[in-house]
Amino acid sequence: MKRIDWNALDEGERAAVLQRPVQAVSDAVRSGVAAIFDAVVADGDAALRACTRQFDGVMLDDFEVDVVEFDAARASVSAEVQAAIDEAAGRIEAFHRAGIAAPYEVETAPGLRCERVQRPIARVGLYVPAGSAPLPSTALMLTIPARLAGCIEIILCTPPRKDGTADPAVLLAARQAPGVRVFKLGGAQAIAAMAVGTERVPRCDKLFGPGNGWVDEAKRQALQRPGGIAIDMPAGPSEVLVIADAGADPAFVASDLLSQAEHGPDSQVLLVSDSDALLDAVAVEVDAQLAQLPRAAIATQALSASRLVWVRDITQAIEVSDAYAPEHLILAVREPRAWLERVHNAGSIFLGDWTPEALGDYCSGSNHVLPTGGAARAWSGLSVASFQKAITVQDATRAGIAAAGPCAATLAHAEGLQAHARAVELRLERAA
Amino acid sequence: MKRIDWNALDEGERAAVLQRPVQAVSDAVRSGVAAIFDAVVADGDAALRACTRQFDGVMLDDFEVDVVEFDAARASVSAEVQAAIDEAAGRIEAFHRAGIAAPYEVETAPGLRCERVQRPIARVGLYVPAGSAPLPSTALMLTIPARLAGCIEIILCTPPRKDGTADPAVLLAARQAPGVRVFKLGGAQAIAAMAVGTERVPRCDKLFGPGNGWVDEAKRQALQRPGGIAIDMPAGPSEVLVIADAGADPAFVASDLLSQAEHGPDSQVLLVSDSDALLDAVAVEVDAQLAQLPRAAIATQALSASRLVWVRDITQAIEVSDAYAPEHLILAVREPRAWLERVHNAGSIFLGDWTPEALGDYCSGSNHVLPTGGAARAWSGLSVASFQKAITVQDATRAGIAAAGPCAATLAHAEGLQAHARAVELRLERAA
Repeated sequence: MKRIDWNALDEGERAAVLQRPVQAVSDAVRSGVAAIFDAVVADGDAALRACTRQFDGVMLDDFEVDVVEFDAARASVSAEVQAAIDEAAGRIEAFHRAGIAAPYEVETAPGLRCERVQRPIARVGLYVPAGSAPLPSTALMLTIPARLAGCIEIILCTPPRKDGTADPAVLLAARQAPGVRVFKLGGAQAIAAMAVGTERVPRCDKLFGPGNGWVDEAKRQALQRPGGIAIDMPAGPSEVLVIADAGADPAFVASDLLSQAEHGPDSQVLLVSDSDALLDAVAVEVDAQLAQLPRAAIATQALSASRLVWVRDITQAIEVSDAYAPEHLILAVREPRAWLERVHNAGSIFLGDWTPEALGDYCSGSNHVLPTGGAARAWSGLSVASFQKAITVQDATRAGIAAAGPCAATLAHAEGLQAHARAVELRLERAA
Repeated sequence: MKRIDWNALDEGERAAVLQRPVQAVSDAVRSGVAAIFDAVVADGDAALRACTRQFDGVMLDDFEVDVVEFDAARASVSAEVQAAIDEAAGRIEAFHRAGIAAPYEVETAPGLRCERVQRPIARVGLYVPAGSAPLPSTALMLTIPARLAGCIEIILCTPPRKDGTADPAVLLAARQAPGVRVFKLGGAQAIAAMAVGTERVPRCDKLFGPGNGWVDEAKRQALQRPGGIAIDMPAGPSEVLVIADAGADPAFVASDLLSQAEHGPDSQVLLVSDSDALLDAVAVEVDAQLAQLPRAAIATQALSASRLVWVRDITQAIEVSDAYAPEHLILAVREPRAWLERVHNAGSIFLGDWTPEALGDYCSGSNHVLPTGGAARAWSGLSVASFQKAITVQDATRAGIAAAGPCAATLAHAEGLQAHARAVELRLERAA
């Protein structure tokens, strides 16, 4: 792991330290995804079958998981894992339910009411990857807020296994939305199917979920299509930034860095500390713990691009973090709550020594679908609101148009929009 | 205006009636915008100067509006318009302030707190078009929620006039965000400047505002760049769908259709009614009112693509509207509030005979930057939340990790992520 003294760097060098490896989409991925979209538009399910044979190595006649497969999934997942899924679901639901926005209303003039109401997005498309490992936790993070939002049709795609079935734990987790329809489709073809619609896969209004570069590019291309399809956020490699002071436990910090690093060789790991001794101790601990990990090869690759950054104090550490805008930020400092207000850019924050990122990944209750790649500057992690849209409503009486109409007419004339003015003035004449 | 009997149509014909003219981005626009981005990345302000000379026909050395120009603007706008801007701003602020989300917190297990807090997006870039007319109202709709959100830097671009100044009313409205920096830049070059950053124009985290096809394409290309820049929503031609019953006033309805039609030749106008007599009367009124409009040529073009749709009853009218998902929906029916719950897809709704769309365009208090082109299925109009992002926070004590940790460890093992499990188990051992 590369050791850096932040205060020995000039501005350009600092920017370089915080630079993520450019996730430049290769022309091959871009044109590959475009070709998949073209094929799905032209040939529908037949194109999905061809892609699934080519990319997943399995020939499927029907992609949809039926009741027999759902029942088999329930039978094959251990009671311990089922209980853990239920327990996690309970906490995720409790937290997400608290975030359901209430409608509101303001009388902005006598006789003029303005309101904002929420409506579920009718058809949502969820993607649960299974790249290096199937992720039932992601199915929980997508289906629970979709159900709480009241979405009418919930479609979930996840790649088929070699035997043509879906991961049973993913299916069990998906049933947190009881009416969910699960299709065994992976990668760009899954996104294209939900964006475009085929004979069997409904066209969705908004697409959700993480994925690899192909999935991310497919979501971006979906956004370019006419009809106003939406996506949750851009998806990139997972990342953590840990701020640790001299009092932090080096073993805990090392375990947090490693749990990020094992995600994939492109995972981003940064440790920022004002303590040289802590940085030394964590480096030693990382090596010790790494030796015991089954996914050590992946973690080692990720760590090779990681950085240990020495800063003057925790104030400066927060500045470094805000400039980086990490997906996950761990504040392994004394009195972490005192620093919370200073943080402006992060997807999710983990306070103190006893809150590992892994807790939020599974079952603290917060959502683990979070902005990566610096997107935390402008994007939020998923919530129930991500599965709804708001509609404003205005309701004027004769008194209302009399009160607010003249202002509208004046501005309409000022903008040279006489028909706008006329629509108001006509009513003002009649209301008088 | 084309008259249609909805119940005489088959499914395909119905879809065709609700089909918007495909806003297919031409290859020329796509590559033109890409070339502007390349030039701005390579040459910064020099590229902006060249574009401004080419597209706006004016040579500007410095784009930024200075205090002298702001003062001159104030002196040149009539007292009546200034008062209308202030009055509109008051109502817009009152309504938007009511929508500021409160943070919330849930104890999801003993010793485990989850929270969601809001942070302003630090640097926002606003675009105020001035195509057929400068739009001070749009400046209000963008600057007021940005200020309420607490954005630190508010950048606003609007095209220069032929004499090199900005529209004074736009400048006055922009000052609703007192620290706003206004740059006289239009079209794709304005968007590229705010997305990329130049010597003088700061790089922004999120871009807002309506615009023509070039602006929309530039916002889409901004979204494709690395770094996680966000945009408010896709932008398309403005549109209204009016549902009117036999009791509606044909003159009012005609004036609403015309105030939409005057926006531009590509504006979309639909009238849906269960009354043949009303449809007849509106058609007569449209012709009569059209004759008096300065922008009659534009409105006539828009009306040529508009449709009068006869339906069986208001229930069916709502179904037609939901399938279309209009930006603006006027419910010119008796007891409009009784129908409100049935509407699922719309940007903003105007209830009854006394609430013209023009009221919402200027000063009812709601935002007029709304989803178009069917995007109302999944996108919301602007609110303070559009200028903020949310961060989740979790805070576990030893008791908290003891309560929730075993569940996390079980799921981590099930997903084959041993380092995740280890980060939890290490703490469980020490917490015991």
